[in-house]
Parts: sequence; structure tokens; C-alpha cells
Amino acid sequence: MSFDRLIKNIQEKQNPTVAGLDPKLDYIPDYIREAAYSRYGKTLEGAAEALYEFNKGLIDALYDIVPAVKPQAAYYEMYGWQGVRILERTISYAKQKGMFVITDGKRNDIGTTMEAYAKAHLGVTEIEGQTVTSFGADALTVNGYLGSDGIRPLLEICKNDDKGIFVLVKTSNPSSGQLQDRTLDDGLTVYRTMGNLCEEWGSLVMGTADYSGVGAVVGATYPQQLAELRKALPHTFFLVPGYGAQGGGAKDVAPAFDENGNGAVINSSRGIMCAWKKENADPKDYAQAARREAMRMRDEIISCIGTIR
Amino acid sequence: MSFDRLIKNIQEKQNPTVAGLDPKLDYIPDYIREAAYSRYGKTLEGAAEALYEFNKGLIDALYDIVPAVKPQAAYYEMYGWQGVRILERTISYAKQKGMFVITDGKRNDIGTTMEAYAKAHLGVTEIEGQTVTSFGADALTVNGYLGSDGIRPLLEICKNDDKGIFVLVKTSNPSSGQLQDRTLDDGLTVYRTMGNLCEEWGSLVMGTADYSGVGAVVGATYPQQLAELRKALPHTFFLVPGYGAQGGGAKDVAPAFDENGNGAVINSSRGIMCAWKKENADPKDYAQAARREAMRMRDEIISCIGTIR
Repeated sequence: MSFDRLIKNIQEKQNPTVAGLDPKLDYIPDYIREAAYSRYGKTLEGAAEALYEFNKGLIDALYDIVPAVKPQAAYYEMYGWQGVRILERTISYAKQKGMFVITDGKRNDIGTTMEAYAKAHLGVTEIEGQTVTSFGADALTVNGYLGSDGIRPLLEICKNDDKGIFVLVKTSNPSSGQLQDRTLDDGLTVYRTMGNLCEEWGSLVMGTADYSGVGAVVGATYPQQLAELRKALPHTFFLVPGYGAQGGGAKDVAPAFDENGNGAVINSSRGIMCAWKKENADPKDYAQAARREAMRMRDEIISCIGTIR
Repeated sequence: MSFDRLIKNIQEKQNPTVAGLDPKLDYIPDYIREAAYSRYGKTLEGAAEALYEFNKGLIDALYDIVPAVKPQAAYYEMYGWQGVRILERTISYAKQKGMFVITDGKRNDIGTTMEAYAKAHLGVTEIEGQTVTSFGADALTVNGYLGSDGIRPLLEICKNDDKGIFVLVKTSNPSSGQLQDRTLDDGLTVYRTMGNLCEEWGSLVMGTADYSGVGAVVGATYPQQLAELRKALPHTFFLVPGYGAQGGGAKDVAPAFDENGNGAVINSSRGIMCAWKKENADPKDYAQAARREAMRMRDEIISCIGTIR
């Protein structure tokens, strides 16, 4: 009923990182694309198939050293329902390999509609008394702009089905401050207010570890806010985007962790997916290049924070 | 490059309403469900097929009197990629019938990821130099918590492909005030600040009418805020949920309109979809019951606001 499983995975692998699976056709070696097109044509189905083969290779190369993957829903929806089918297959394959799967969908709505998203992405769907799994991720990113009505429907599933959510608190982009950094009449910023709500919601879904099932997204590009929030939100696990391609380094993300090296997972998407391009590696070596980059990132972060206890 | 097409549809039909297509299996007459299950089993595919047949009947009964439909993405995602395929087919069918289609997805992200959502839901996807339409709606609801970085990627498509977006400003749910009603240090509320951003973003995508391609979601359940925002945001078209089942009436939504009866479209989902249950109608008459409710709603609102000019 929390991030216990994610934390266990991180501790076992001594690696507090998550590989973002945001595949673009540009990132995918020619030989994979050509094979997919020759079977399905240059169609949504063909593109989706290329995405899946690329993801599968990455998962095979990463699952024994990286605890989690984070597919970004947008890059699958871009290829229509055919792409969304591949999102489902990617989640299922990563779970088979023992990885913790965070669907980055930033979903938000209220009441029964939010319940529908919760069932879709984390829970099960009922069809005439039978239950079926639709996407079946372990965690989902969500947007809290609508308040508790948008979060409550998720907590039930977090509790009963051992799932987690990450609420957007302080995002990694340059304009995140436009609303999030504004100060409210009680002197707190919007992001801090959202963070406090995470602690409040999380108190309903505490795990056996110190962290609840309600986490927060806090960008690596704002190390000061990361430090402030780590201190202020002792039960909120952080998902930290913005490492690597977006400019954050290991020193920038260090404040996300608690004194046990726990409390956060750092995402890298392009850095890992495109390592073969950066290395000028043989395209057939793309997955091993991703593995090398994942090990480099792990070692860099661990050298900053020490053993994860 | 704005809501010109929606406004034209509304004026022609003299009906400022949108039918929400948020189908739940409970809402669907037995005979439709049984037919779908007998072909595809009690599976995600069978459930999705029932959703589609239900939607198709509603669209057939509504398209000549209702200017727009609003499918809610959550209710399709709940049935996996099979449900998402039905979202695509529903959008396509409604467009064939001349309806303006608003996908209610409340999507949000930044940079190239938001661009991927924009291409997915409103634009076209490129595959090796060819372009394909993935979902192809006319407008999309979005969440502005991430600031301009999350909205800018959409404006290009609004401008070039004649599409629109609705940004969540003041939502209809009880807890919407938790963040949205809070006052910032300049004395403005969060919802007003978000509304002002809509005017700013909208100035980049003005149409021939008075309204830009950046609209706002403002709930019928808060008539006072509706009146305040209508006055403060002269170029922002409103999508108003919360009429009917959520408690808002025609008098509550009247402040959403300008002096020409323009400037807003009112959504009803359950009221229209479940009219046959409320009427105790023959299940085979479900679509005609929906039509009767849509006409009643239209007449009720028009009697409050007069002719739409």
C-alpha cells in the first residue's frame, strides 16, 4: 500500500534510478524500424511495433541493474490506439522482468472519472462481475490542481492493490514557477502547499517503510526546492525528473535523498535511450550502450549519497 | 485557429451545449451489451464494442441538434487499448456527422512531451515523412499547472490546424477551492491567475470571432466565479461542466454567456446518456430519450439567454 516494493527494488540493486521509456522514432536504430515497417508498413502499427522492439531491448539490458521504468503515455498516444496497445505490452513485459512500472500520464479528474483512470492504469476494470487488468502499472503520475476530489479515488487502489501515485509538486521545466513558485496568502508557495497536501493524502496510505503511497514529482533542475521539500515532507517519496538531458547532475539530485540514501528515485530518459548515439556506438549495440549509461548514472549518484539503507 | 467552427455550429443550431460521452456499462441498455458480448465475449473488446454502439446511437440521435460532443478519455482508457480504439472511432464518427469534438483528457506535460500529446489528440503524427491522424479531435482539455511550457506546444497546432484547447481554471468539484480559490500575494486567486494566463496565451491564437483558441473550463457549480471570469476574460471561451447531474441549472450557467448569448458551451453527460433510465423509457428508445433531454436542456438554456448572435 505504498512504495515499499519500489524501495525494496532500489535497495536490492543499490540503484535509486528509473529509466524513462519515452521512445521517439528518431531514437530507434534503423534496423529495428525497417524490420517493423517491412511487416506492418509505415503505419501507426508499424511505428508502434518499432517502439515495442526498442523498449524490449532496453528492458532486457536493464532489468537486473535498474529497479524501475517510467513509460511516458504521450509518446504512445502519439501513435494512436496502436501506440497505446504497445504501452500496455511494455508495462506487461517490464513487470514480467520484475521491474517496478511508473506510468507517467499526469492524469487528473474528479470522482467517478478519476476512479476510471485509477482502474485503467493501476487497478482492474469490472465487466459484468468479472475483473480484467487494463494497463496494470505499479504507480501513476497525477496532477493535483483539482484538489482532494481528484486524489481520493486513487487512495483506495493504493491501499488495496499495493500501488502508488506521484503528484506534480515542483516540475523541472523553466516556466514551472509561473504558478508553482507563487506565494499564497499564508506565506507558503503553491508547490509547498501541494507538497503539504501530499503528506496529508499520504497519511491515509502509509506503508511499512517511512514513506507513504503518495509521492511527489520534484524536478532535479531546482536543487534548492528539492532540499526544502525533502525536509518538509518526511513521508513523501520523490520522483525526480530533469537529470541528464534537462541539465541536472548528481550533485543537483543529492538533496532529494534522506540520510539513509532513501526517499527518491531519479529519472533519466533520453540519456539512457540515446546513449548509443552519444557514444557513436554500433546501432545493434544500443541496448548495451543504455546499460553502460545506466551503470554510469547509478555509480555517479551512489558516489554522492553512499549506500542505500 | 480558434473556436470559430464551434461557435458557428452553436449559432446554426441555436444550441450552446455539448453532449458528454462518458459511457459506463451501467448506462448501456442490455440489448446492446448482450449483442457485443455474444460477438466478443465479456472482455475488454466486448465492453468497448458495447460502448461504441451506445455512442453511435447517441450521435445519430443528436448530431442535427447538438453542436458538439465531449468524450471523456478516462472512460475509454478504463477498457485498455481496446477502449482507446473506441475513443478514436467515436471521434471519427462524430466528426463525420459534422459535430465538433472535444476530447476531455486534461492532458499536461512540457516541451516535446506536450507536443506528443498535441500531435496525438489534435494534430498529426509523422512516420518517416508521412503524416497520419491518431485521434484527430477538434479541441482538448488541458491542465495548466506546469505553466507556459505546457501550453506553448499546443498553440502551434491551434494556429496551423484550426484547433482549440480548454485550460482548467475553476473546476466544478467541491474541493476545487483547495488550491484554486487560494489567494496569491498580488491579491488574485489561483483560478483568476490561471484565467489571466488563458487570455495571455489566447492572444497568440485569436480567431475571426471575439474568442481565441484558448478556452477555459469553469464549473456550473460556481455561478459567482463564472460571472467574475466572464467579465475578466473577454476573449476566453468557456467549457462549463456541472450542469444537471452535478447540480447546476440553467440559471447557474447563464452568467457564462456574453451579451450576445455567445462565449460558452454547457456540458451535460449523465443527464443525456441516462435520460432513458430517468424516463423509464423502453431501452430501445435510449437514443430518442437522449434527444428529448438534449432538446429540453437547449430550450431551458435558450429561454434564459435568448437568441445566440
